Amino acid sequence: MKSQTKTTNWKSKLHEIIYEADTKAGKWFDIILIITILISIILVMLESVESFDAKYHNFLNISEWVITILFSIEYIARIVTIKKPSSYIFSFYGIIDFLATIPKYLSIIFVGTHALIALRALRLLRVFRILKLARYMGASRNLIAALKASKIKISVFLFSVLVLTIILGTVMYLIEGPKNGFTSIPHSMYWAIVTLTTVGYGDLAPHTPFGQFIASIVMILGYGIIAVPTGIVTSEMTKADNLALINTQHCPNCSEDKHQDMATFCHKCGSKLNHE
Amino acid sequence: MKSQTKTTNWKSKLHEIIYEADTKAGKWFDIILIITILISIILVMLESVESFDAKYHNFLNISEWVITILFSIEYIARIVTIKKPSSYIFSFYGIIDFLATIPKYLSIIFVGTHALIALRALRLLRVFRILKLARYMGASRNLIAALKASKIKISVFLFSVLVLTIILGTVMYLIEGPKNGFTSIPHSMYWAIVTLTTVGYGDLAPHTPFGQFIASIVMILGYGIIAVPTGIVTSEMTKADNLALINTQHCPNCSEDKHQDMATFCHKCGSKLNHE
Amino acid sequence: MKSQTKTTNWKSKLHEIIYEADTKAGKWFDIILIITILISIILVMLESVESFDAKYHNFLNISEWVITILFSIEYIARIVTIKKPSSYIFSFYGIIDFLATIPKYLSIIFVGTHALIALRALRLLRVFRILKLARYMGASRNLIAALKASKIKISVFLFSVLVLTIILGTVMYLIEGPKNGFTSIPHSMYWAIVTLTTVGYGDLAPHTPFGQFIASIVMILGYGIIAVPTGIVTSEMTKADNLALINTQHCPNCSEDKHQDMATFCHKCGSKLNHE
Amino acid sequence: MKSQTKTTNWKSKLHEIIYEADTKAGKWFDIILIITILISIILVMLESVESFDAKYHNFLNISEWVITILFSIEYIARIVTIKKPSSYIFSFYGIIDFLATIPKYLSIIFVGTHALIALRALRLLRVFRILKLARYMGASRNLIAALKASKIKISVFLFSVLVLTIILGTVMYLIEGPKNGFTSIPHSMYWAIVTLTTVGYGDLAPHTPFGQFIASIVMILGYGIIAVPTGIVTSEMTKADNLALINTQHCPNCSEDKHQDMATFCHKCGSKLNHE
Repeated sequence: MKSQTKTTNWKSKLHEIIYEADTKAGKWFDIILIITILISIILVMLESVESFDAKYHNFLNISEWVITILFSIEYIARIVTIKKPSSYIFSFYGIIDFLATIPKYLSIIFVGTHALIALRALRLLRVFRILKLARYMGASRNLIAALKASKIKISVFLFSVLVLTIILGTVMYLIEGPKNGFTSIPHSMYWAIVTLTTVGYGDLAPHTPFGQFIASIVMILGYGIIAVPTGIVTSEMTKADNLALINTQHCPNCSEDKHQDMATFCHKCGSKLNHE
Repeated sequence: MKSQTKTTNWKSKLHEIIYEADTKAGKWFDIILIITILISIILVMLESVESFDAKYHNFLNISEWVITILFSIEYIARIVTIKKPSSYIFSFYGIIDFLATIPKYLSIIFVGTHALIALRALRLLRVFRILKLARYMGASRNLIAALKASKIKISVFLFSVLVLTIILGTVMYLIEGPKNGFTSIPHSMYWAIVTLTTVGYGDLAPHTPFGQFIASIVMILGYGIIAVPTGIVTSEMTKADNLALINTQHCPNCSEDKHQDMATFCHKCGSKLNHE
Repeated sequence: MKSQTKTTNWKSKLHEIIYEADTKAGKWFDIILIITILISIILVMLESVESFDAKYHNFLNISEWVITILFSIEYIARIVTIKKPSSYIFSFYGIIDFLATIPKYLSIIFVGTHALIALRALRLLRVFRILKLARYMGASRNLIAALKASKIKISVFLFSVLVLTIILGTVMYLIEGPKNGFTSIPHSMYWAIVTLTTVGYGDLAPHTPFGQFIASIVMILGYGIIAVPTGIVTSEMTKADNLALINTQHCPNCSEDKHQDMATFCHKCGSKLNHE
Repeated sequence: MKSQTKTTNWKSKLHEIIYEADTKAGKWFDIILIITILISIILVMLESVESFDAKYHNFLNISEWVITILFSIEYIARIVTIKKPSSYIFSFYGIIDFLATIPKYLSIIFVGTHALIALRALRLLRVFRILKLARYMGASRNLIAALKASKIKISVFLFSVLVLTIILGTVMYLIEGPKNGFTSIPHSMYWAIVTLTTVGYGDLAPHTPFGQFIASIVMILGYGIIAVPTGIVTSEMTKADNLALINTQHCPNCSEDKHQDMATFCHKCGSKLNHE
């Protein structure tokens, strides 16, 4: 029985290190994990640079193996230390962790397959784990709240852009036609998005005077449209900031809440507020 | 007489299904209609992709006929079930519905005419019907109200942009001239819009040092100008949000309305407000 | 003496028509003037389109003469009807009016000189006269006030952009060098502005990996910088909107002003306000 | 002893001129310094223009020597007049001043070395000195405060952009591949930044339909993302403006401060406030 307690103890300790960031060991684990993730991302990038890969192929291969083994250990440790392994394995991060570990092993079986890069690319998703640590959560929660609050407005906006893109794409396809590069409606829609968002690659540009006239109108439209999401986010953020100045204390007399941070008396009945 | 009631009954039932979205059948009708519209739009797009059209010409042709017949049935049903058919036929949506149905029939008469694509493009306008359904109306009404409230400001802004475009177009035409691609003032104005809106295709760019200097000033101007519509929309939206916090309850004493959501006493006469 | 009164009368009447827009005749004069200006601008544009000029050279020439004569009459009328002609002749609009009239006359003396187009381009400045009419003045005054209030902030912003441009231009000139198109520091500064403002023609783009890295940072900087003018204008506009809700009525008791539009009692001493 | 006092006197006088801008002489020194800096910057720019350098090489060389000597005198004067020279020499501006003076002297030893341009470029950093003078400090302090207040939000934003760039760069590298110009992941990330920031050079653009589809989504994402920094800065600025309406007067009864500009009574205890 003592041995079992020991095991549980050892497991719960490791669990604390891996899954939490409150203890010193837990923080160090997270920092090392982030560094390993960043290194593995840089390695994937460097491997894609042909001239670099040609020179340092062996170094990249070995480093990749080291990181894969580290990730494997982490993956196994996460399964072992959790009470209900399936809750981790089939969670979002569990799947990502698995996909981030597996490609190098698969590369022994399927030598030189290009599709493996795709799998390896999934390792990049591990980077999202950093978000767990972020001290910035307060700020980003605010940001996400602002985005969520304006979810409907943003949907309406995106839908309008889509409708506009379909119409503009069709119109430009009719005006310019395949001889000026607008080979199909989807291709023209691509042009419409490139123009509306003011990206403007120039790989596709109107050549006929009428096409350029329509394009000018599209650009000025895009100019105005760019104002809409900014307006949405800004007004939500201003609102969120204003609400942040309102606290949750209750009036001892009438139990009204939502008083301003600086208030001393209840704004409803005039009773004095109890400050914590 | 009984038969007539039956007909009326049948008509009013169909009317409810087609024109309203309150009943279950009405909702299903709308959903099927939207799906049909979307499919027809995708078909028009795919037909414009030459390589796809070459392969699946028959499939596209048959699908197009199926959709045209479905639209024809809907069009006739709409005319039959309404009391005053002319009020539908000559309405905005009535004309669009007609134009969305007719092109395929015309294609039998005028085989292979290019202009038919233009007519068929009108089917895309049917997509606006989706707007009728949108649960989002609350949000978009807000959006449209914000745009309407700043109509005058936006007009002033667009007029200023137009004047600026004319002046810049002329100046660049004089500086760069036809030998650098600025073949005429309208063409230079096209360049000015491409630059002011920060789209920047690069199909037309200044080559002389002085032209590049003027272009730099234009870009920084455009940078500042982009702030104006954003400022307009944002300030209108913030205002609209503030107004949203004002409700429509009336004071029982002086019948003043527009009290703030949190108000307990009338801001005009000081009487207590009745909260629902 | 009677004749003199008559002359004065005739002059003051014409003065009212030309210089003011209160009477019916004055409004008509302004409308005709605007139409003439717009036509003359369109003519200048069309003349710059070579293919159009080749076909309709005579038509353009005659139209240009008609407009020049109309402008001449207006110019003389403005001088004759004003009490102190010099105050008009040397005013901003007086000079523009003169420069807008003279080029066609000069074209008889200096046949075919290119520089005349420059003079003729000044006719475009006449378009600013439309601003005098604008019913929109209320809105644009608001706009201009917002811009003026943030004048200092905008200056600081523009100065920062200039300093940034000089530094980035020099850095990119050193990194990329003439072999990649960055032929000189001013040319590199042109690139920096094209990039910072997110215009991105692509006539000049970094080719070395390090140059592309610096360019990426420049772009993200530009991304952030674009927020600053928007923030300035928006916050000024919101402020202006808030102030617009405050009227100038004075309290009859304590003579406090700046009450809100909806206020019935003075916010300072509680006395009832006199509404006009 | 008298002579020593004289020396100290002379030094402290020069110190006042060089280090402060309160006296008339101090202001003139600053103005001349700014003009010299601007001229030296323009000279560096002109020297980089090959055609100009070929023509006026001697003039540029002599001017550069004159400015270098002027900077040398200033540098020595700054060291001599300060009590603790090391506190200047190793300060940020001390190092910049040194680096701005040295390159021309080095050019005698290392003739024609390209690296000297890099050193000379540092002279540009002297331009930051202008900031010391700026009357605009009030406005820019506001600006910097707004940026500082939103430091965390901006970090979260930049981090999100970085993560997005890595993911998009990898995805596009997989989709488009080296044959379409996306030669490596870092190169694809460069494309992702060029696109997300709506710069859009067009030196790198997707060629496959699927790549263009992903690119379209990236652009619309970038469209939405551009709203975030604007929202942050704007809401901070509006907040800063609101705080500016709060003054620092203290209540004579309860010594509460932060009353609104228009307040007559203390918002805490209700005592009358003393207005200055």
